[in-house]
Amino acid sequence: MSEEQFLVVAVEAAKSAGEVIRKGFYQTKNVEHKGQVDLVTETDKACEDLVFNHLRKHFPDHKFIGEETSAALGATADLTDDPTWIVDPLDGTTNFVHGFPFVCVSIGLTIGKIPTVGVVFNPIMNELFTAVRGKGAFLNGSPIKASSQDELVKALLVTEVGTKRDKVTLDDTTNRINKLLYKIRSIRMCGSLALNMCGVACGRLDLCYEMGFGGPWDVAAGAVILQEAGGLVFDPSGGDFDLMSQRMAGSNSLLKDKFIKELGDTN
Amino acid sequence: MSEEQFLVVAVEAAKSAGEVIRKGFYQTKNVEHKGQVDLVTETDKACEDLVFNHLRKHFPDHKFIGEETSAALGATADLTDDPTWIVDPLDGTTNFVHGFPFVCVSIGLTIGKIPTVGVVFNPIMNELFTAVRGKGAFLNGSPIKASSQDELVKALLVTEVGTKRDKVTLDDTTNRINKLLYKIRSIRMCGSLALNMCGVACGRLDLCYEMGFGGPWDVAAGAVILQEAGGLVFDPSGGDFDLMSQRMAGSNSLLKDKFIKELGDTN
Repeated sequence: MSEEQFLVVAVEAAKSAGEVIRKGFYQTKNVEHKGQVDLVTETDKACEDLVFNHLRKHFPDHKFIGEETSAALGATADLTDDPTWIVDPLDGTTNFVHGFPFVCVSIGLTIGKIPTVGVVFNPIMNELFTAVRGKGAFLNGSPIKASSQDELVKALLVTEVGTKRDKVTLDDTTNRINKLLYKIRSIRMCGSLALNMCGVACGRLDLCYEMGFGGPWDVAAGAVILQEAGGLVFDPSGGDFDLMSQRMAGSNSLLKDKFIKELGDTN
Repeated sequence: MSEEQFLVVAVEAAKSAGEVIRKGFYQTKNVEHKGQVDLVTETDKACEDLVFNHLRKHFPDHKFIGEETSAALGATADLTDDPTWIVDPLDGTTNFVHGFPFVCVSIGLTIGKIPTVGVVFNPIMNELFTAVRGKGAFLNGSPIKASSQDELVKALLVTEVGTKRDKVTLDDTTNRINKLLYKIRSIRMCGSLALNMCGVACGRLDLCYEMGFGGPWDVAAGAVILQEAGGLVFDPSGGDFDLMSQRMAGSNSLLKDKFIKELGDTN
């Protein structure tokens, strides 16, 4: 089966989950808490079942890593070289609960541990980002590419403050922002890492980073979409991107070195 | 002439400007610089002319305060008790230049210095926020109201890092964020103060504040929209909102006291 066929099935799953997200977005929600500031909803669980069932039906021999399943297990499965679907059924759950329109389903497929197929669908703004390794990246079927901005001072950065509220993490978070603000144009925070990566992929944003996020489901799809859009995905230290590390940075093809220099200054 | 008629004409002006913004949004832009990180485009100027010409045609005796006109004069006209249209033809100019979809035209009318009519239109996401003092607030014609969240720890805050890059301002900005993060759920930064206020008005966000923004055109329309949605607009100190002060905070009706306590802790 070809990677394009993997994409077709993943898009079907994303559209189905997106419809569930869209309906829930406009209704009163039944909210549980994961820690103080993270939220999980019935929609989240329903979407993961829906996506996994659809993918398993077509690809019974593939492996699966999902946010909800991992939370239930209390651990994330090891990533192997087997084809592995890595799914966040509802990225931006805080936004979902508040009715803020940056929510999405994120479906990535790794083969040989390499992000190979990516689908990120925002059903509220009706934006479907897709990519297959080596075949380019698309928004609603039209090719997208990262920006050509080469000056940090004109670059728009997107990041998040995360969900941890201990002093060390918070001081790191705001000190990093403080130092970066001298170097870049401005900052956006929209509450969905998958959509942040897609924002860099389509050139609306130039830079993104986040440390300490939930897991590989936040970045597996976004990584291939951003790379196929001509952007770069790397560790905030400048080293290689590690899907399982809960650390990521991304940029267009021109800003990486300048960006990691400033990110590194703050470590 | 009634306030509803003022609203009708303001919506006409906003729709016309919105069409110009929408077209420009998807094109290559001719960008000038206002300082290091603020941007003004041909679209900005064209929209202000368009809005002011339409309003002047219907209300030749009214007064007018606009972002572009004020920038050209190097000063903002004094606010009088006369009916005064206060217009930001393109709020979110950085977003506009980058293609990030939070852009809007903001048209407010004060009478006796009180924000009385407000129109904020985002032509990319096709969201039209409107309000007339005493008559409620609306999104695309449907009534909106601020959230009923009464716990700060569950509240979503929206703010901006502004355009100033001196050390005192940046340290104040990030220290305030650092201290607030212990108390609230999370932060969003979307790049348009007018849309931030509308986000609180329709309950997607619970809290907003900004100090040192451009001028009354950023908040004149948003103030009446948020108030008519049942929210509160005030000075970040907790004192009365002053349209001309370049300082604002807003919340739903339940969180003001808790919010200003935390904002005050950081001053």
